[in-house]
Amino acid sequence: MKYYTALLLLALGSLDTQGAEPYRITLTSTTKNLHLEHWSLSGSEITPDSPNWSITKQTLHGGKQEGVDLITVDNGLMTFSIIPTRGMGILRAGTEEVSLGWDSPVKEVVHPQFIRLEDRGGLGWLEGFNEWMVRCGLESNGHPGTDRFINNVGEEATMDLTLHGKIANIPASEVEVIIDRQAPYRIRIRGRVDERMFYGPKLELMTEISTTPESASLRIQDTITNRGDDPQEFQILYHANYGPPLLEQGARFLAPVSQVLPFNDHAAAAIDTYAQYAGPTVGFTEQVYCITPLAGRDGRTLIGLVNRAGNKGVSMRYATSQLPYLTLWKNTPSLGEGYVTGLEPGTNFPNNRRIERKLGRVPTLAAGEQHHASLEITILSNHHEVRGLEEEVSALQRQQPPVLIRKPEAKD
Amino acid sequence: MKYYTALLLLALGSLDTQGAEPYRITLTSTTKNLHLEHWSLSGSEITPDSPNWSITKQTLHGGKQEGVDLITVDNGLMTFSIIPTRGMGILRAGTEEVSLGWDSPVKEVVHPQFIRLEDRGGLGWLEGFNEWMVRCGLESNGHPGTDRFINNVGEEATMDLTLHGKIANIPASEVEVIIDRQAPYRIRIRGRVDERMFYGPKLELMTEISTTPESASLRIQDTITNRGDDPQEFQILYHANYGPPLLEQGARFLAPVSQVLPFNDHAAAAIDTYAQYAGPTVGFTEQVYCITPLAGRDGRTLIGLVNRAGNKGVSMRYATSQLPYLTLWKNTPSLGEGYVTGLEPGTNFPNNRRIERKLGRVPTLAAGEQHHASLEITILSNHHEVRGLEEEVSALQRQQPPVLIRKPEAKD
Amino acid sequence: MKYYTALLLLALGSLDTQGAEPYRITLTSTTKNLHLEHWSLSGSEITPDSPNWSITKQTLHGGKQEGVDLITVDNGLMTFSIIPTRGMGILRAGTEEVSLGWDSPVKEVVHPQFIRLEDRGGLGWLEGFNEWMVRCGLESNGHPGTDRFINNVGEEATMDLTLHGKIANIPASEVEVIIDRQAPYRIRIRGRVDERMFYGPKLELMTEISTTPESASLRIQDTITNRGDDPQEFQILYHANYGPPLLEQGARFLAPVSQVLPFNDHAAAAIDTYAQYAGPTVGFTEQVYCITPLAGRDGRTLIGLVNRAGNKGVSMRYATSQLPYLTLWKNTPSLGEGYVTGLEPGTNFPNNRRIERKLGRVPTLAAGEQHHASLEITILSNHHEVRGLEEEVSALQRQQPPVLIRKPEAKD
Repeated sequence: MKYYTALLLLALGSLDTQGAEPYRITLTSTTKNLHLEHWSLSGSEITPDSPNWSITKQTLHGGKQEGVDLITVDNGLMTFSIIPTRGMGILRAGTEEVSLGWDSPVKEVVHPQFIRLEDRGGLGWLEGFNEWMVRCGLESNGHPGTDRFINNVGEEATMDLTLHGKIANIPASEVEVIIDRQAPYRIRIRGRVDERMFYGPKLELMTEISTTPESASLRIQDTITNRGDDPQEFQILYHANYGPPLLEQGARFLAPVSQVLPFNDHAAAAIDTYAQYAGPTVGFTEQVYCITPLAGRDGRTLIGLVNRAGNKGVSMRYATSQLPYLTLWKNTPSLGEGYVTGLEPGTNFPNNRRIERKLGRVPTLAAGEQHHASLEITILSNHHEVRGLEEEVSALQRQQPPVLIRKPEAKD
Repeated sequence: MKYYTALLLLALGSLDTQGAEPYRITLTSTTKNLHLEHWSLSGSEITPDSPNWSITKQTLHGGKQEGVDLITVDNGLMTFSIIPTRGMGILRAGTEEVSLGWDSPVKEVVHPQFIRLEDRGGLGWLEGFNEWMVRCGLESNGHPGTDRFINNVGEEATMDLTLHGKIANIPASEVEVIIDRQAPYRIRIRGRVDERMFYGPKLELMTEISTTPESASLRIQDTITNRGDDPQEFQILYHANYGPPLLEQGARFLAPVSQVLPFNDHAAAAIDTYAQYAGPTVGFTEQVYCITPLAGRDGRTLIGLVNRAGNKGVSMRYATSQLPYLTLWKNTPSLGEGYVTGLEPGTNFPNNRRIERKLGRVPTLAAGEQHHASLEITILSNHHEVRGLEEEVSALQRQQPPVLIRKPEAKD
Repeated sequence: MKYYTALLLLALGSLDTQGAEPYRITLTSTTKNLHLEHWSLSGSEITPDSPNWSITKQTLHGGKQEGVDLITVDNGLMTFSIIPTRGMGILRAGTEEVSLGWDSPVKEVVHPQFIRLEDRGGLGWLEGFNEWMVRCGLESNGHPGTDRFINNVGEEATMDLTLHGKIANIPASEVEVIIDRQAPYRIRIRGRVDERMFYGPKLELMTEISTTPESASLRIQDTITNRGDDPQEFQILYHANYGPPLLEQGARFLAPVSQVLPFNDHAAAAIDTYAQYAGPTVGFTEQVYCITPLAGRDGRTLIGLVNRAGNKGVSMRYATSQLPYLTLWKNTPSLGEGYVTGLEPGTNFPNNRRIERKLGRVPTLAAGEQHHASLEITILSNHHEVRGLEEEVSALQRQQPPVLIRKPEAKD
């Protein structure tokens, strides 16, 4: 775990509010027994020099979204919506020109009370899946299937892991808004999500999702802590999903890669075009690539997705020490079935935890130990910005040519 | 599917509001982010010439019914209560003389948050089962058990289907009240219930449950649409349940039947009295009959239940092209265990979908295709009306004598 | 069942309100369609001669406790909090000196909507487990595992029982506060919790949790009724959990015992110290002892837990005819993993019901039959009171020496 702890002090430092006391308000709190149904704030109230931002919290109604909280941040240029009720996932983000997210067949922001993870052979998670950015974890993520655990009488027992774990269907226990009163007036939404049980994990997610006024970037800074006294395995994967306008026939995936490994034979057959996208294709079956990205001297990699014209895109920048494995999920069936690609940095690939453990990709946190991950996501709105991404990826790639493995790993 | 689409234009026509702009109000809407806790309307406000009706929406409290919506329509003669939170099922209907429904051991109107369909070997649906009219479907209905499906990696996988599917435990996304301003001043409650998931069905139920002032009839007009781009199997069964006063020792089931097939050996043993009812009988085990009803020249059949004295009853009229299979469920144990009979028109019999598919009774909807079903339910309050039902059933039966099959179908 | 019915009249008698009409208020009612979000009452309003008590009802917010009801009774000396939303369990009780309860890794009072009992091989109950006193039952309790039942077609089928059953995750349907207007001004919180389903149990729990002003005792009086017409198995176990300050290295369990049986080989190895406690011990695995306690001439036994210094403790007094089997659960890992011991009187030991039935420890209620259980729990705050408990236990033990069985029962 040493590669995780190295960034601890840096990360804590970056949480500083840089001087004068920031504006703070608690929106949800189990400690304060508080849950605001509606609330809003505008920049003019807090940062008169930078008045063009706002934050709105609403509670959704109707169907399966009855009672879901949604916090929408408009930084003046970019808007994004956080779902405290669904583990602080991010429903959508975007500027007027480029929207991040996708058009899932799931139309509502589904309250966890309606999700049965066990459903459909462990695929129940898919009944709520429509976020731009959804975390998979924390005890486990990846494909459903049987894994072992130690039960209450100290014996090895089996449990059926469900797709992508629980964290996306756990409501946040604490939600806070913090605004720096000094330039660049960073706007921070913090949330704590607990994945705790007796005779089980005591994992805590602390997230800060932040931006600055008029910026085309947002930052996700997560800390996962083992609050138990025993060592605890964990897994985290950032499932960032993109449909049109970025995804289209001729769109391209960009990343400096050390190695590309197909998830299964079906993906293997198409590995030569793994970085290119088809248009909506009736009957398309997902292709998944397990990628090891290259980092620069600062330890960070840069990946992205750009449209065919090369004038719109998104980049995601993060440290490979924090998230060493990158899954590329290509799912380009017809629009009504969910035309989408996932760029998914994680601590692991999305095999069942049983397999990932065997292959050495399930980290463990000691008592009190923390895992940090920080992602900077930036919207690219013109040829110039897209070219900047391309050039930086190319520069990183110069370290070595990409290695394409043509056969899936041996798993079970 | 051609027998379903024939009635499309007719059905759409009957949804017309016949001239002047009708009164409309939205009670629940995911689109408008709206959910009214309490609301009511009386006929005198909208149709002064026909003032003796009212509609009330309330939210239920306490126990497992906390947060459940209930819309009660009183048309001046008949009252019925719709449960938007439970897939637009109908809790009860009735006049002062005849009530439709039953006295289930489940006393509360259970919120789906408390239902675990997987429970008890897939019988969890029974923890909420107490409606007069509950839909079973849409992806599947019938007995629990393993069936196959195509999973996310395009492979055939297995899933455990649960009893009678999900639709009765999905809250409506849109609920609207519409009142015609011209005679006969039809009162319409419309709801949309979505059974959607990623890598799964994208089925939509649009229902209109309507009546006219002072009428002893209500009409259910449903449209199921495949909102996905791929073909999708579906199943729908209208589980209409009757206890006292209609059900009693000597009560009779009436239907023009082409064929009666016992569901199992236990039912086969009692097939000669399949249309007659015993009084509450300690230790009674359900008897289920799979019936193919006969339709008249208008394509519609008429079935019903009448009490021993022949002065109270109910009739259900519908097109056999829409709902070709009729299940008769006889369950006459002691009152406290749930003394009830189900008259259940459907697209299939209630075997597990795996069996129904093998026997050719699982229809498929193409992308965008719709299935319509319309049922007219009428309360009969005197000998004359009961006799009318008997005569109409007899007339339909004249086409052929009923065929009683004495052995269950070969299934697995 | 005759040993249960003997106390019926006594129990009903003790529910009397002794003369003048008591104060009554309904806080939750499915019948009245009522659910108060906030409410409070102080002694000065009702019993001016004894003004130093109060009752507060609040609704909890944030995380998994959103919407949970909590009723806190402060009798002037002792405080306790009842959770109607979690089957009328008791979160905590205590005086300024001695608190009853424990510090579970589960920090929130989890709403049943977030509990999936089937999770983790049937251990999902543990995601909400943090009460001082939680009932296990009613259809079953004990370890998860497969058992048989009779399904809707009258056939023997199998179901996966989940740990400790459903009752702790069913919200109360009726909650009432009743205050006697005459000394000793008993303060009563009554609740009804229904564990009902069609083709399944129709079990009703009526509980009264009561105390008197300035008292260090509270009383739990439960009646379980089979509201079905068919005989119904049931199980009830009162899982009373204690951490610090009572539980510590050197704390002692006190009970007059006829026999102590280890639950498994692991417990057998430590049976000689079954009544003594270790301090928090990293890696400790639970030890469970199945105890048959001795009762006095009044039919009641007295058990307890006392701290090392012998100046703090708790006693639990109840009739062994009502709760013949006592489980002692010793779970003393490090504090962060849940350092706790359970003193658990019940109708059975916590094996899976399949095993308990085979060993003759699953009672059945005839139609309408009731099972009563009454527990008096008292906080001991000084050497004198602890010595009183010790002496009474010793006196009861004089009937016979305890028999320690050194091998677990043969089970499967």
